[in-house]
Amino acid sequence: MLKPTGEAGTTLILGGARSGKSGFAERLVLESGLVPVYVATGRVLDEEMGDRIAKHRQQRGEAWKTVEEPEDLETALDHETRPDRAVLVDCLTLWITNLMMNDADILARSASLCGTLSRVKGPVVLVSNEVGMGIVPENRMARDFRDHAGRLHQQIAAIAAQVYFVAAGLPLKMKG
Amino acid sequence: MLKPTGEAGTTLILGGARSGKSGFAERLVLESGLVPVYVATGRVLDEEMGDRIAKHRQQRGEAWKTVEEPEDLETALDHETRPDRAVLVDCLTLWITNLMMNDADILARSASLCGTLSRVKGPVVLVSNEVGMGIVPENRMARDFRDHAGRLHQQIAAIAAQVYFVAAGLPLKMKG
Amino acid sequence: MLKPTGEAGTTLILGGARSGKSGFAERLVLESGLVPVYVATGRVLDEEMGDRIAKHRQQRGEAWKTVEEPEDLETALDHETRPDRAVLVDCLTLWITNLMMNDADILARSASLCGTLSRVKGPVVLVSNEVGMGIVPENRMARDFRDHAGRLHQQIAAIAAQVYFVAAGLPLKMKG
Repeated sequence: MLKPTGEAGTTLILGGARSGKSGFAERLVLESGLVPVYVATGRVLDEEMGDRIAKHRQQRGEAWKTVEEPEDLETALDHETRPDRAVLVDCLTLWITNLMMNDADILARSASLCGTLSRVKGPVVLVSNEVGMGIVPENRMARDFRDHAGRLHQQIAAIAAQVYFVAAGLPLKMKG
Repeated sequence: MLKPTGEAGTTLILGGARSGKSGFAERLVLESGLVPVYVATGRVLDEEMGDRIAKHRQQRGEAWKTVEEPEDLETALDHETRPDRAVLVDCLTLWITNLMMNDADILARSASLCGTLSRVKGPVVLVSNEVGMGIVPENRMARDFRDHAGRLHQQIAAIAAQVYFVAAGLPLKMKG
Repeated sequence: MLKPTGEAGTTLILGGARSGKSGFAERLVLESGLVPVYVATGRVLDEEMGDRIAKHRQQRGEAWKTVEEPEDLETALDHETRPDRAVLVDCLTLWITNLMMNDADILARSASLCGTLSRVKGPVVLVSNEVGMGIVPENRMARDFRDHAGRLHQQIAAIAAQVYFVAAGLPLKMKG
């Protein structure tokens, strides 16, 4: 359960690819009874990506307000959070990818995101991919990406009210 | 514990490579006291694969009836399940691999397998590899494979009586 | 909590890259109140590796005695364990990497490490990377590495008093 209206609270949902993490996050948001807002961080770079995003949007249905914000997640959260809304961010790993492509300072932005989360005006559910449980990748950029993602997950988990790990569509509560 | 004789029930066991998932599945089956049947989906394509399969078979010992069925898992389950037997399928990821190699319609076959599981005549334990917790693979086929595997895990977990996640040989109950 | 002074006990801590597993292991050791000893298995092969190791050492601070032992972990444990010390080994996956580079017999050495752990004179905390939850790697050496790591994790988990799985800095108790 998300925190009731008027209470800010961060929920982090981690899982592998096709683990059902987004579906679980959407159920959490809808069960809150708050107005559901979807913040999509994915940038459509090719057809495959476009297909995935369109399919996700179709599955969510029309109840949701959708905001596309590939980079300035902090401002999107400042604008979209309200006591009567539950905001779902899907997903942090795409946000990090976009920041890396623009040579942003990921450490600074991770800190800035955590700062934003500490002052938002309504509950926020953040979905992210677990990417660090395979073999060490051969290229440096992929290793840096794993480091950035893992570090951000730790920082958000430290301030989150709830953390779930999802596998095969089933949530495992890690915190909260 | 598997469901007692006469009760149908699906158990899904997920885990990484060399996580001990097969060993745990075998113990579950043997502890049931039912006649153990092993459905091997692996197709011997090279020596490495042959070695792995031979080693697994040797470790299982002689109590087991072994059936090799790389593709038509649904028919194998229809034939092999009985109230006095416990059937172990090892593993779903190899089954998906075989289907992909033959350009089968994975969505249709996943649905067909779930349909079969809903009407089998005895308990079935399905082992599968968690493959979605590393970096996004560079080739499309590997990404499709992750999607197929993850989707199938979610579908089976939704109908399963029990789901376990295994790491370092230790089971973590996710459902049941 | 580690076992109190005078009791031998093995703790295994598994997690993905940047999961916070080392940080959690360090907290376990420090909370024990015993003298903290850090056994580093990493061998500095390039600048990136050197940076990571230096950063880790800096984060740990000065309370720790640090021992560098890339290969002969068994002797290091024989020497360093004492009832009034808690020894942290970071990490097993680098140890396996070093052994593989020298064509060591990994099965024999895994058995030898388990033998050592059964007779050490004080608590030992072993950190290791979960590396088997991604797509099957294309090169044989990476597949062998996954096998060696997974097998060793199972063997140590079987004799360990406690096993934790860490994600996003949060420990999940698997055993103990």
